[in-house]
This record gives sequence, structure tokens and C-alpha cells, in this order.
Amino acid sequence: MGLIRVAVAEDWPRIWPFFAAIVGAGETYAYPEGLTQETARPLWLEPPPGRTVVATEGDTVVGSAKMGPNRPGRGAHIATASFMVDPAYQGHGVGRALGEHVVGWARAAGYHGMQFNAVVETNTSAVRLWQALGFEILTTVPEAFNHVRYGLVGLHVMYQRLSRLEFVNEVGDRGPDEGTPT
Amino acid sequence: MGLIRVAVAEDWPRIWPFFAAIVGAGETYAYPEGLTQETARPLWLEPPPGRTVVATEGDTVVGSAKMGPNRPGRGAHIATASFMVDPAYQGHGVGRALGEHVVGWARAAGYHGMQFNAVVETNTSAVRLWQALGFEILTTVPEAFNHVRYGLVGLHVMYQRLSRLEFVNEVGDRGPDEGTPT
Repeated sequence: MGLIRVAVAEDWPRIWPFFAAIVGAGETYAYPEGLTQETARPLWLEPPPGRTVVATEGDTVVGSAKMGPNRPGRGAHIATASFMVDPAYQGHGVGRALGEHVVGWARAAGYHGMQFNAVVETNTSAVRLWQALGFEILTTVPEAFNHVRYGLVGLHVMYQRLSRLEFVNEVGDRGPDEGTPT
Repeated sequence: MGLIRVAVAEDWPRIWPFFAAIVGAGETYAYPEGLTQETARPLWLEPPPGRTVVATEGDTVVGSAKMGPNRPGRGAHIATASFMVDPAYQGHGVGRALGEHVVGWARAAGYHGMQFNAVVETNTSAVRLWQALGFEILTTVPEAFNHVRYGLVGLHVMYQRLSRLEFVNEVGDRGPDEGTPT
């Protein structure tokens, strides 16, 4: 694993081949059918306040992640993200590096938490990775993903709190005489 | 409550006033800030395979619902929907009539289930209505909605299976000698 940096326009033709391979494999993502390099581009390159990054090894783009608010308006304090790692580079720690980067970005950007809306339950390497990075499975929506090999499988909703404000509450719970954080 | 019918272009100026009032109240929906009648329109009027309906009393549009696939591609067998009832007509059974209509539509359209992604937990009348219509709370994403009065409150993920295919499995579970449904 080399660098993780913000994606620029010239990166999209280098992301698209593994994006297309991963979506086409039918095992992990619910994107529209029949996407082309042009129609998929706005679905992956996030405008501000979101952003898209690439992971590189030397000159090669080996993975990408997009991130931003999970909902607009009164839900915009919760972040979400999506990840793609070139299948040729799986097992190199690319997913973990992107995950750590994204969580760090969201925390630094002041998001209160991060939610993954649809992690395919049979994608166990991803589920384990997100758990290792602090996410928990809140629920599994049953039969919500039509897996190319397994048929209808569940989609995990995963969540991690990022704000450290709850520490203030824990201190407060000890009682008012123990001092109020300033 | 009068009729529920598919919304036409001329309905939008009649939906917009209560849409704006409900979103502006800050208690139930996470829509972008600063919407106008023009920018909100494509967020509520769903293109096929989704659709938007209105509920009327006489010549007055008193509520509206939009419905369609919750995700594209390999998630498109699960429906979702959103509902708005003119505050001046709450308590008239408009929400229930729209809810029953939407569930019936989704079942007839062959959806496998219906998911609500973000029901504000303090919107207890809506939560109770959806439960009465067969939905269950799968989880509550903590502090995911910034309520104008209560601050950070949870968002329920609610779900209802619609397909009756599981009955086939139940019959099958009795054993192969009891016959296979045709």
C-alpha cells in the first residue's frame, strides 16, 4: 500500500475497470444495471461536502473510497462511505487502509457517527474489517440483496459513533460534585 | 378521505405548501436545506418504476406519498416509500389510507418487502401507524436525526415482508410427502 489521496478527474478511468468488475460480479453492491464509464462517474465521484479518494501502489490506482453525509439536512451529521478494492490487489491491506482513512476523515470533519446502510452479509471479509475498525451491526435487513450466487441475502446496517461528546456525559454521570468538564 | 390517485404535474403546486411546512418544521424529514418549489419537485415526484400519489378530499389535495425501489439493481426487489399529510388534515385517516394504498401497490407490483430507512423515533403517531400496518422496527440508528426541539434522536429502520413465498417454505417444511405446491 502506498498513498491515499483525493481523487482527481483523471483517476476515474483507472477506477472504472475495477468498479465495473466489482459491481458486475453481483456480490457486494446494489448499483443500477447497465452502467457505463460515463453514467457511473457521478455515482462514485462525490461533490463537496463529500469526497472521493484513491489508494495507490506506485503509479497504479488499486482502490477507492467515497464518503460524505449519509442524509442531507437534519441527518447530515452522520457520515457514510463506500469502498472498492481492485480484486487483483485484495489481501494487500488496501481496504483496511481506506477504512482507517475514511473514519479518520469523518472524525476530523466533525461527524457525529458513521453509518453503512447496506453491507452484504455474505461479504464476510468486509464485515469483519468494519467490525475491527469499530463498527457494529445494528440490524440485518432480511433478503434485501439479490446475490448472484446465493440468492436473497441480508444487508447489514452498520454504525460507529465518532463524537467523543459521550465522554462528557460519563464524567457527568459520576455526579455534580466531581466537577464539570470545561 | 376521498380518493387516492396518481399525482399529475398540476398537483405539485398543491403538494408543495404542506411539503414545505412539514420539512420546515424540522421534526420528521431529512431533506436538503433551502429547497424551493422547483428544487423539491424532483425529490417528491418519482419517475417509473416508482410513482407518487395524492390523497384528496373533494378538490383539495390533503396528502401525498411516493414509492418505488429502495435501491437500484440487486436491491430493487425491496420497496420504500415516504408520506406527507397536510397538517390541517391530520387525524382524518389520510396517513393510514396512504399507507394501506402503498403497501397494496408494492405487494401487487411484486416487491419482496418494504423498508423505511429513516422514521424519526419521536414521530410516534407514524411509528404506531406503520406498526399497525405490519411493519416492525428492525433497529434504531442512534442520534441520527437532528430534531428541531429534542436535538439528536434516533431513526428507526422499519421493514415488512410482502412476498408470500415463505408460505411455500412452511409447507415444504412439513415434509416432502405432504405435496409440493404447484
